[in-house]
Amino acid sequence: MSTLAARVAASAKQSLDDLAVFGGSPLFDRPRPVGQLYAPPVERYLELLRESFAVRHLTNDGPLVLRLEQRLAERHQVRHCISLANAALGLTMLMQLFAQGRRGRVAMPAFSYRGLPHFARWSGQTPLFCDVDPVTHTLDPADVDARIDDETHSILAVCNYNSPGDLEGLAEVAARHHVPLFLDSVYGLESTYRGRALGPFGRAEVFSTHATKLLNGFEGGYVTTDDDQLAALLRWQRNFALPGWRPEAADDWGPVLGVNAKMTELHAAMALASLDGLADVVERNRARDEAYRREIAPVAGLSIAPSGDPVERRNFQLVALEVGPPWPLSVQQTQKVLRAEGAAATIYYSPPLHLTDPVSPLPPGSLPVAEALADRFIQLPVGEHTTLEDIGRLGDLFRFLARHGEAVVGRLGAA
Amino acid sequence: MSTLAARVAASAKQSLDDLAVFGGSPLFDRPRPVGQLYAPPVERYLELLRESFAVRHLTNDGPLVLRLEQRLAERHQVRHCISLANAALGLTMLMQLFAQGRRGRVAMPAFSYRGLPHFARWSGQTPLFCDVDPVTHTLDPADVDARIDDETHSILAVCNYNSPGDLEGLAEVAARHHVPLFLDSVYGLESTYRGRALGPFGRAEVFSTHATKLLNGFEGGYVTTDDDQLAALLRWQRNFALPGWRPEAADDWGPVLGVNAKMTELHAAMALASLDGLADVVERNRARDEAYRREIAPVAGLSIAPSGDPVERRNFQLVALEVGPPWPLSVQQTQKVLRAEGAAATIYYSPPLHLTDPVSPLPPGSLPVAEALADRFIQLPVGEHTTLEDIGRLGDLFRFLARHGEAVVGRLGAA
Repeated sequence: MSTLAARVAASAKQSLDDLAVFGGSPLFDRPRPVGQLYAPPVERYLELLRESFAVRHLTNDGPLVLRLEQRLAERHQVRHCISLANAALGLTMLMQLFAQGRRGRVAMPAFSYRGLPHFARWSGQTPLFCDVDPVTHTLDPADVDARIDDETHSILAVCNYNSPGDLEGLAEVAARHHVPLFLDSVYGLESTYRGRALGPFGRAEVFSTHATKLLNGFEGGYVTTDDDQLAALLRWQRNFALPGWRPEAADDWGPVLGVNAKMTELHAAMALASLDGLADVVERNRARDEAYRREIAPVAGLSIAPSGDPVERRNFQLVALEVGPPWPLSVQQTQKVLRAEGAAATIYYSPPLHLTDPVSPLPPGSLPVAEALADRFIQLPVGEHTTLEDIGRLGDLFRFLARHGEAVVGRLGAA
Repeated sequence: MSTLAARVAASAKQSLDDLAVFGGSPLFDRPRPVGQLYAPPVERYLELLRESFAVRHLTNDGPLVLRLEQRLAERHQVRHCISLANAALGLTMLMQLFAQGRRGRVAMPAFSYRGLPHFARWSGQTPLFCDVDPVTHTLDPADVDARIDDETHSILAVCNYNSPGDLEGLAEVAARHHVPLFLDSVYGLESTYRGRALGPFGRAEVFSTHATKLLNGFEGGYVTTDDDQLAALLRWQRNFALPGWRPEAADDWGPVLGVNAKMTELHAAMALASLDGLADVVERNRARDEAYRREIAPVAGLSIAPSGDPVERRNFQLVALEVGPPWPLSVQQTQKVLRAEGAAATIYYSPPLHLTDPVSPLPPGSLPVAEALADRFIQLPVGEHTTLEDIGRLGDLFRFLARHGEAVVGRLGAA
């Protein structure tokens, strides 16, 4: 059977019974994920590993770690790249450092990743949830300005794949309140702000090299900064903050809690092997993004979140489907139907963090934009495991659902 | 030049000028480390990696991680092995879990690794420093019993390479005060307590697979436990404690702070490749341990800390040299001379943690055994980079220093 014929056969949903959620054959035999999952050339990876083994430098600051840090510092045009075991530890370390030993709060967007409040608590602080911009979904400087108080010791902004947010506005608020601004730039790699690559903004930025992210180190992360003192503290902190290695930078700083957060040669090799493929990864992402937009265009009530200011570079890593009337299914119903077909669709930040915080939730209505955005977006399958043909099949599915929406909703309700 | 001739030439310290500390040629051209640094067969490692890549399971709970956890659970004879990014995170996670959301204290030995108080603080608690046994250097149950109070939420005991400590005595104290006992067993792999392999003792034990430890996963660690509830919480906690994966075990437990602490396939492959060599590693360690004892035997004032109860299994991973009169050099002077020769000698836990804690130090005299032990031991070069011939050279050096001790001390003082 030709590829085209296969597509027609598998995606030809003729009746409701053909939908996988009602017992039909799923569109995809194995789940199409929402992560990048780029696989670098295995031989290139093994070659780098052999190089590292030959030097027998198994411990800290191995040659591949140093090479990766140097290449990333150049790419981001910053003075320092501090590689880490993962991005979560980087965010946690920065929250601890910026608190200077005080309890208090870290300002952060309520419409974001569920890990962030945990990291604040590890650092001895609580999250100060703030609202976001309705278009870019990034931290709203005016709302931070209104909520921040004397016990807020830092501002964490989260860059989105389609916009880094109002970095100038946030920097102004941070300066006015004399607190450091730092960025979760996990989704900002290969993106620009006013023409300059992310990396040097705020006091520090945190990136991820997890397999689901743009640059695949299998696991891992790094901090970029132009701040020599902060860089010295992070390098010390990631290796237990051992007294024998105490940097001068610690002299006029609060207590530094040590942790084991070093990236290893095994992961640095993977990230290095992936680095050369980065530009191609972004081009394939762009093609998928365009395909989704073409497929969705004729369907009323569905749209794809804007891919951002066209004069800036973007990575097109995620595709967020916005769902609303006259599209007949709710976000949850849409997700259910998609998942049954093998599309690992993920509702995008629902509920928002401030409503479900296990320790200090805010009452509904506190952060209207975050609450309005929740339950409107679904991340669609992206990355290397999702082909343009897959996206075509999903387009067929969306059009089928648009035609038979009421019947699908009725049968989902009855089930 | 034959090997023997080379040894004679290089180690023939004829005069004080031959000592590297005074400008002579060092005994070793590259440092002999104090870590295990076992290199598994590269081809075996690469074979495992290819296997993992073929499955394309780059994310959580990959096949190699699962295989490693199963093999280690069998080896330790426990129900659960939870692999982690490193042992430090395991200790920190357990401290956080056992605190059940309360601030308070973690009881721990004052004569131990400098990271431990940091981990307590990340968990929102402070260290309760306790004294140790003068022979095994492990946590003293009677001292814990005397110091523990209502705000102490857990007891962390640290197993030594030559003794796990009085686990029965500690378990009694923990039971009497209704707090969990858990073990830092990083130096306890391949050791037994009353004939049973470490792993199932206390509520949980934490092991390391760092390259400097017995089992080389390059980096990494794991927790062993027979407690189903704790195992479920740790598995959830290591992957951000995401709400969608909340285990039933969390229902009657305090707040669980999520973190990214997963071991990756890259490290699991390394640990698996190393696992088969473990018995041979211990045998080579035993031979080095015996060689040191032979070399040191004739030197007055030097001795090697006991390798433990002969009916129990031990891993001989570390060799601690005890220094005292009539040996002419102080511990610091001995270390200085050794390091100059290329022997990466490390003073063993000096000063003790309670005297130098940056936040809540205790006054001198508080913990007499820990204070008496500090400044008496030096870890000597061990592991795969230290040959029996190297140990012979060090023996020659020690005998030379014993003969010329006063002159060496004088010249060190003058310098």
